[in-house]
Amino acid sequence: MMRSFFIFLFTFVLFGQYTRCGAQEIITPNERQLKWQEAELGAIFHYDLHVFDGKKYNQARNRLVPVPDIQIFNPSQLDVEQWVLSAKAMGAKFALITATHETGFALFPSQYNPYNVSQLNFKEGKADLVKDFVDACRKHGIKPGVYLGIRWNSFFGVHDFVVDGTGEFQLGRQQYYNKMVEGMVQEICTNYGELFEIWFDGGASSPAKGAPDVLPIVKKLQPNCLFYHNDELAEARWGGSESGTVGYPNWSTFTFHYTGSGESAPAAIAANHYQLLKQGDREGKYFMPAMADAPLRGAQGRHEWFWEPGDEHTIYPLQDLLNMYYKSVGRNATLILGITPDTSGLVPKGDFDRLKAFGDAVNKRFSTPLARTHGTEKIIHITLPKIQHVNQLVIQEDIKYGHRVLSFVVEAKIGSGWKVIDQGTAIGNKYMKLLAEPVHAKSFRLRLVETKATPFIKDFSIYDVN
Amino acid sequence: MMRSFFIFLFTFVLFGQYTRCGAQEIITPNERQLKWQEAELGAIFHYDLHVFDGKKYNQARNRLVPVPDIQIFNPSQLDVEQWVLSAKAMGAKFALITATHETGFALFPSQYNPYNVSQLNFKEGKADLVKDFVDACRKHGIKPGVYLGIRWNSFFGVHDFVVDGTGEFQLGRQQYYNKMVEGMVQEICTNYGELFEIWFDGGASSPAKGAPDVLPIVKKLQPNCLFYHNDELAEARWGGSESGTVGYPNWSTFTFHYTGSGESAPAAIAANHYQLLKQGDREGKYFMPAMADAPLRGAQGRHEWFWEPGDEHTIYPLQDLLNMYYKSVGRNATLILGITPDTSGLVPKGDFDRLKAFGDAVNKRFSTPLARTHGTEKIIHITLPKIQHVNQLVIQEDIKYGHRVLSFVVEAKIGSGWKVIDQGTAIGNKYMKLLAEPVHAKSFRLRLVETKATPFIKDFSIYDVN
Repeated sequence: MMRSFFIFLFTFVLFGQYTRCGAQEIITPNERQLKWQEAELGAIFHYDLHVFDGKKYNQARNRLVPVPDIQIFNPSQLDVEQWVLSAKAMGAKFALITATHETGFALFPSQYNPYNVSQLNFKEGKADLVKDFVDACRKHGIKPGVYLGIRWNSFFGVHDFVVDGTGEFQLGRQQYYNKMVEGMVQEICTNYGELFEIWFDGGASSPAKGAPDVLPIVKKLQPNCLFYHNDELAEARWGGSESGTVGYPNWSTFTFHYTGSGESAPAAIAANHYQLLKQGDREGKYFMPAMADAPLRGAQGRHEWFWEPGDEHTIYPLQDLLNMYYKSVGRNATLILGITPDTSGLVPKGDFDRLKAFGDAVNKRFSTPLARTHGTEKIIHITLPKIQHVNQLVIQEDIKYGHRVLSFVVEAKIGSGWKVIDQGTAIGNKYMKLLAEPVHAKSFRLRLVETKATPFIKDFSIYDVN
Repeated sequence: MMRSFFIFLFTFVLFGQYTRCGAQEIITPNERQLKWQEAELGAIFHYDLHVFDGKKYNQARNRLVPVPDIQIFNPSQLDVEQWVLSAKAMGAKFALITATHETGFALFPSQYNPYNVSQLNFKEGKADLVKDFVDACRKHGIKPGVYLGIRWNSFFGVHDFVVDGTGEFQLGRQQYYNKMVEGMVQEICTNYGELFEIWFDGGASSPAKGAPDVLPIVKKLQPNCLFYHNDELAEARWGGSESGTVGYPNWSTFTFHYTGSGESAPAAIAANHYQLLKQGDREGKYFMPAMADAPLRGAQGRHEWFWEPGDEHTIYPLQDLLNMYYKSVGRNATLILGITPDTSGLVPKGDFDRLKAFGDAVNKRFSTPLARTHGTEKIIHITLPKIQHVNQLVIQEDIKYGHRVLSFVVEAKIGSGWKVIDQGTAIGNKYMKLLAEPVHAKSFRLRLVETKATPFIKDFSIYDVN
């Protein structure tokens, strides 16, 4: 009976649909979403022409005005493997590279977009940073992904997906641009092996709105690649801020099957500072896990995805990064940190060291629980050999079966009674809590107050961390 | 006395100014204009992406809509030397290549314009048709020139010099485009040796109007290159049609120092179907010789600068080409014929053969006069050994001293009196006449009815041609 239930469930998981268990629908991830949620931590590397211009990055202007001389792109010691090692040092399981960003300049030799590395004196036009990147990722056990910015293109003159211009002239160039983008997507999906995620920044709009038709290309050529995102499909969603955090609760289910590109988002999404993106929708019919993203250089009132001179002091302190981690991975989201190589072609030492410190701290905090267990019961117990100091909890649902826990409490036996030491609603892939007040106890229990069908708690663990 | 007069005159010629001889100004060419007028016959080769698209050329559309896939540019037997041999066969003394035309695609590897041959699979991106062209020209004694189309650029979105678009976005891309063009001009002027002519199609407008600032670059890097043209300077002028002919008279002097680019031409120029361009201005203060241009494939109601399938029947018949020659070179203009290689990368045999037939016919008609003379007198005589059949005249002023003949008659001694057999006004570099009725006579004279200062007739010759 149990076996046939699993087969039944598995069938639906494979096709990314939902299953009914009793009266309630359970929305489950597809294989791509499951792997992406379980990866938990990723990195994204931003690199573009204006890194080399010696000026402070001005996104609004860089979207509008092409970099005057592309030959400034000339890193003296480019070592993309070193980038990947910085991601590995922080514990990232996957990493992305901005194959194109808002200038429109491609870091790979495209036959469709002539504005690319083959025009550079650098490496005599033979550079291919996307290839270097995916190769280094695979060498070091990181899953590679690619970010394509197609919403803006200062060189070709694209402004929020629309080729700037008038009349037939605009129309013809729009059609051309769409083919250019589709060609680049095909190149990215064909020439670099299996990709973990393809990220269209700001989404890729949709062909119905006159934008390139990218979804069928990705679906055909990279069936195992998470598609993020256009107006037809979002296999993940932006978490509503670039603070590296999401709200709580944060459900992996969502109200719509897409979140919109550019200005096209449904009004319900933009309302209340993107609250819906930050929290998801417990009753949502679409599985769409949240991404928390932030640039590593986001402290001191700065927020820089790209390297700039004199910004070393803006690297987030370790404590900030750990706070982010608790409020993203610990809230059922996937955290993607932005790392930015400098003009030498390396991740600066200060950034690298901070990432490693972050990775080491996470390892230290989560690798040695006092105890752990798992189960499918409504109440799951941990009993320590003796009374101990406990200040951190981790709970995981096996998210491939969807959100089954709707509310829970964690209790410790103090004296003869159970005292609530934490409570919440969503668990999802991972729930973490650093307790405001440490507990001294021997017996702990996770009590699932409200569930859908059989809950699958794959981990319940308690820690004493410094 | 004569010697010091020449020195005086020479000084002014060098600096492209005019001299006063008696009461009348004489406007003289600079060295570039002189060589260009004396060259008399040139060729221009048009080659661009859309040659390969299998469709009829649609200029209005090609200006607006980029060619979808540049990889169609893949000539199977490209032999630019063969192109140059076709120009040589027709007797051209110089030749130009469209380094860029209205698509914006560059036939040379530009660091400033990424939309260029280096993007092609063809020759693994190593093609440089401009280099092949100038090398072949020099090998075969043809003076090389370059045509740059900067007025339109379907790829970048440039429409009559203006980058299409709105607001700051348009402004930034316009500035970028201007730098791109200036960079290409610098490349063309630096990397290919001395050029005979640089031709900006439709002119290059002017920086005062927001267009690229190309004149100082050409002046600095190619001081011996004829500059044709922008709103600041035109060292030659379009002859007012693409029929391969100019009007009569056609003076090398002009009313303005420029003719305007695009829609910016002075109203006086556009009036009456460009009559001013066709005839020049006898009283004009600027030396600006006329170009008669026509595509070789201009018969049968077609007018094709670019090769297209099924257009072989539109090659001008020999007789039409000879008529053009009389009405262009024979009217003090420089004739530039458009030759268009096909998708194999060769000038088609039919075109090549017609060009050779034209060159041979010109040679035959003009290489063996019955007699020739020259002089500085008001009346110049030719006396044959016996009465002969004469049906063609050629008269040349030494145009480096400017137009000095304002009207003339040619007379033959019939019986005891002089009978006018031809008369005209402008002579300039060359005047040719095929007489409607042949003359049988022994004595001929050229009588200069109205002149400025001393006339310099460097050739007066009579022919009997079939």
